[in-house]
Amino acid sequence: MSSATSSSLNLTKLPTRAPRGMQKEHIAAELKRLRQELAELQNCFYAENRHSLLIILQGMDASGKDGLIRRVFSGINPQGVQVHAFKEPTDEELAHDFLWRIHQHTPRRGMIQIFNRSHYEDVLITRVLGLVNAEEARRRFSAINAFEKLLQQSGTTVLKFYLHVSQEEQLERLTERVTDPSKHWKYEAGDEQKAKQWPQYQAVYEDVFEHCNPASCPWHIVPADQNWYKAYVVALALRDALLKLDSKYPEHKADRPK
Amino acid sequence: MSSATSSSLNLTKLPTRAPRGMQKEHIAAELKRLRQELAELQNCFYAENRHSLLIILQGMDASGKDGLIRRVFSGINPQGVQVHAFKEPTDEELAHDFLWRIHQHTPRRGMIQIFNRSHYEDVLITRVLGLVNAEEARRRFSAINAFEKLLQQSGTTVLKFYLHVSQEEQLERLTERVTDPSKHWKYEAGDEQKAKQWPQYQAVYEDVFEHCNPASCPWHIVPADQNWYKAYVVALALRDALLKLDSKYPEHKADRPK
Repeated sequence: MSSATSSSLNLTKLPTRAPRGMQKEHIAAELKRLRQELAELQNCFYAENRHSLLIILQGMDASGKDGLIRRVFSGINPQGVQVHAFKEPTDEELAHDFLWRIHQHTPRRGMIQIFNRSHYEDVLITRVLGLVNAEEARRRFSAINAFEKLLQQSGTTVLKFYLHVSQEEQLERLTERVTDPSKHWKYEAGDEQKAKQWPQYQAVYEDVFEHCNPASCPWHIVPADQNWYKAYVVALALRDALLKLDSKYPEHKADRPK
Repeated sequence: MSSATSSSLNLTKLPTRAPRGMQKEHIAAELKRLRQELAELQNCFYAENRHSLLIILQGMDASGKDGLIRRVFSGINPQGVQVHAFKEPTDEELAHDFLWRIHQHTPRRGMIQIFNRSHYEDVLITRVLGLVNAEEARRRFSAINAFEKLLQQSGTTVLKFYLHVSQEEQLERLTERVTDPSKHWKYEAGDEQKAKQWPQYQAVYEDVFEHCNPASCPWHIVPADQNWYKAYVVALALRDALLKLDSKYPEHKADRPK
């Protein structure tokens, strides 16, 4: 995993695959062990009811966001985890500022919230479609930075992951959506069009990594061509974040900080 | 009305009464005329469905926020106006950042939203009660400024009014809550305690006017000892804000900008 902290980042130079020598079987066993650890850490985090955790997942189409959620979180008590997938905004959502619908889904204390896509779409697909120009994007970058800072200052750990697939891997997966009956349901009209716009999408992602990437809230660029490796990298980062919070079981249920 | 744009503001130096020579009867007639104008402007603003308007009302206890809403807005189509009174936060609200519950009530396009008290309570009463220290207040000031900027950039006009009563007038009104049966219902336990803390409240208000008062989103300090004058001042500011938006009736109902 690379932390995208450079001021101008070139995605093509960052790996999309596991480092040489990593073995799938070994990592899969490690991931299994990590999942148990995560389940225990999350139990204590939930009981302590003091912090919250927001996981932001972004990536090109077919970068495997859904599969990642399944692989990393399936061992965790669902009572403490919520997933929200942000789709195309409704009329009501468009009648407010772009963070209005996002803010409603930020996690309360004790909870882990996963954003499957997020407010970053408002400076990604919207730019490729020409709905948002560079000037408006700059304003939104500032608003996003202030918003994430507000969350952090209120006790929310914010983890941002970009699932970094290669163009070749994306094309292969998009083709499977057509050829593999078990994957038909993932096919969306527009997949081909978006695949053709690969360079435009990469460029606006790079702009995000340049402007919404403070040291206090960095992006994790996760090599995502291999599902087993990507899940392991995210699980590790999540484990580290939970360890850092150092949650303790409270003495009483009512011992809730206000 | 004074715009609180100086970097350090002394509330005791700002008037709480109408300028000498203003006559109640004359202003009352003016207000009546203004209300008609407001009703027409709001109708067009609503139909255009392009901008939104947020009115933030703050003031000491008994400064007359409820009465002001009645006096200024009673002629306006209630379909286009919403009032939200922010009370002591619930457990669920306290489990999120302080702007979480506020953001949910920001106005959609076409709407006028009135906040009867607001996110400013999170840097006012909370400070007097010692729940928020100066350092946390500074962080919240930044968050508030970024939040209001986000709203403005999304087409929301933000008007902030502080209803400025004198301590003498406040005491008189609080006494009436006890002695006048038609005002008993306004009495709240704690009224006396808060009245005793007048200097502390004035000090934290002054801090707000120093830190959350950009030229693009200033406070209006409204002399509020006389109900007739205060309503007139707010109605004038609202009229000016609506005129500035220069709303036009759209050609079709469906002509809604996205």
